[in-house]
Amino acid sequence: MNKQERLEKQMEFILELDKIKSITRQTYLANTTRKENDAEHSWHLAIMAIILEEYFDKDINLLKVIKMVLIHDIVEIDAGDTFCYDIKANEDKLLREQKAAERIYNILPENQAKEYKLLWYEFEEGQTKEAIFANILDRLQPIILNFKTNGLLWIENNISQQQVLKRNENTLTNGPKEISNYLLTLLNRAVELGYLKK
Amino acid sequence: MNKQERLEKQMEFILELDKIKSITRQTYLANTTRKENDAEHSWHLAIMAIILEEYFDKDINLLKVIKMVLIHDIVEIDAGDTFCYDIKANEDKLLREQKAAERIYNILPENQAKEYKLLWYEFEEGQTKEAIFANILDRLQPIILNFKTNGLLWIENNISQQQVLKRNENTLTNGPKEISNYLLTLLNRAVELGYLKK
Repeated sequence: MNKQERLEKQMEFILELDKIKSITRQTYLANTTRKENDAEHSWHLAIMAIILEEYFDKDINLLKVIKMVLIHDIVEIDAGDTFCYDIKANEDKLLREQKAAERIYNILPENQAKEYKLLWYEFEEGQTKEAIFANILDRLQPIILNFKTNGLLWIENNISQQQVLKRNENTLTNGPKEISNYLLTLLNRAVELGYLKK
Repeated sequence: MNKQERLEKQMEFILELDKIKSITRQTYLANTTRKENDAEHSWHLAIMAIILEEYFDKDINLLKVIKMVLIHDIVEIDAGDTFCYDIKANEDKLLREQKAAERIYNILPENQAKEYKLLWYEFEEGQTKEAIFANILDRLQPIILNFKTNGLLWIENNISQQQVLKRNENTLTNGPKEISNYLLTLLNRAVELGYLKK
């Protein structure tokens, strides 16, 4: 592949990714006018990564965390957004997403396709320091939006504090103590205010 | 300020930034269903930064470029989006945006407010290697979308190739030769196809 073909493949990938702007998530915007999409969500996580870096390990690779959150939802172009509390839809989620990763990342030149597929798997497995950081942000962002909207999504779906606690077990156990304290306070307040079922 | 107050200010900033998802730009999505917003645009630029890094200086600080593109439009929460070919609206753009930067970045703890205001000014001045890279992406992204939509925005606004060339003078002069060649080819093709006036 010559240099021009390489750049054309990269531009094709960049344009393909435009579709993520049309993948709607469950979470409402803070102003409740509509639900957010994957591009907006990914941007918000990247902002959170740079603003909240100080709470995570000193030797964390922040650039890697940001790359992860920027690309983590690309597979939803083909696989769609799966609501985290929908048990049935979550059964074949990984398979649908793996198929999507093969198609979408392979638009890139081979070395980059490999790099970004590996990065996505690392995020999904959630074992490395960077993947733990990225996953905590991915869980935390909808919670602060749901709280800000007076629990709109939680109330609509009859969600209990127990369900949110279970989904955020990893953050509460392995996350920085400042973040887990913040999260616990928020979830207790959400019950007091009637945003979440007890 | 104690640690808890510091985290609360950071969270307040993160929630304030949610408003950027409602700032509509001029550029249409690739599928032309609607115009994109600032959060989506900023996410797209960050993706471009990581995918196109190889064309820029080896010693560039990619993390800094990404931080710049993630935050560069935050001022539009107060100042709104200014269409680049609207001469009148561009007259007081800088003043409106500086006022916005003071209000919005100052939600953050002092050290971060200072850091991100400086980063935004560096982007606006466009002199450092990282700011040049970020500005090239900011110019290139709407062009590839406008081309993909068969010149929809250009045709609606009766834009000429000359206007786009002038706006992209810096990319064509100081940008990597692969990117400037790609851009020139695209703009010539846009004239041939009737997307841009000759």
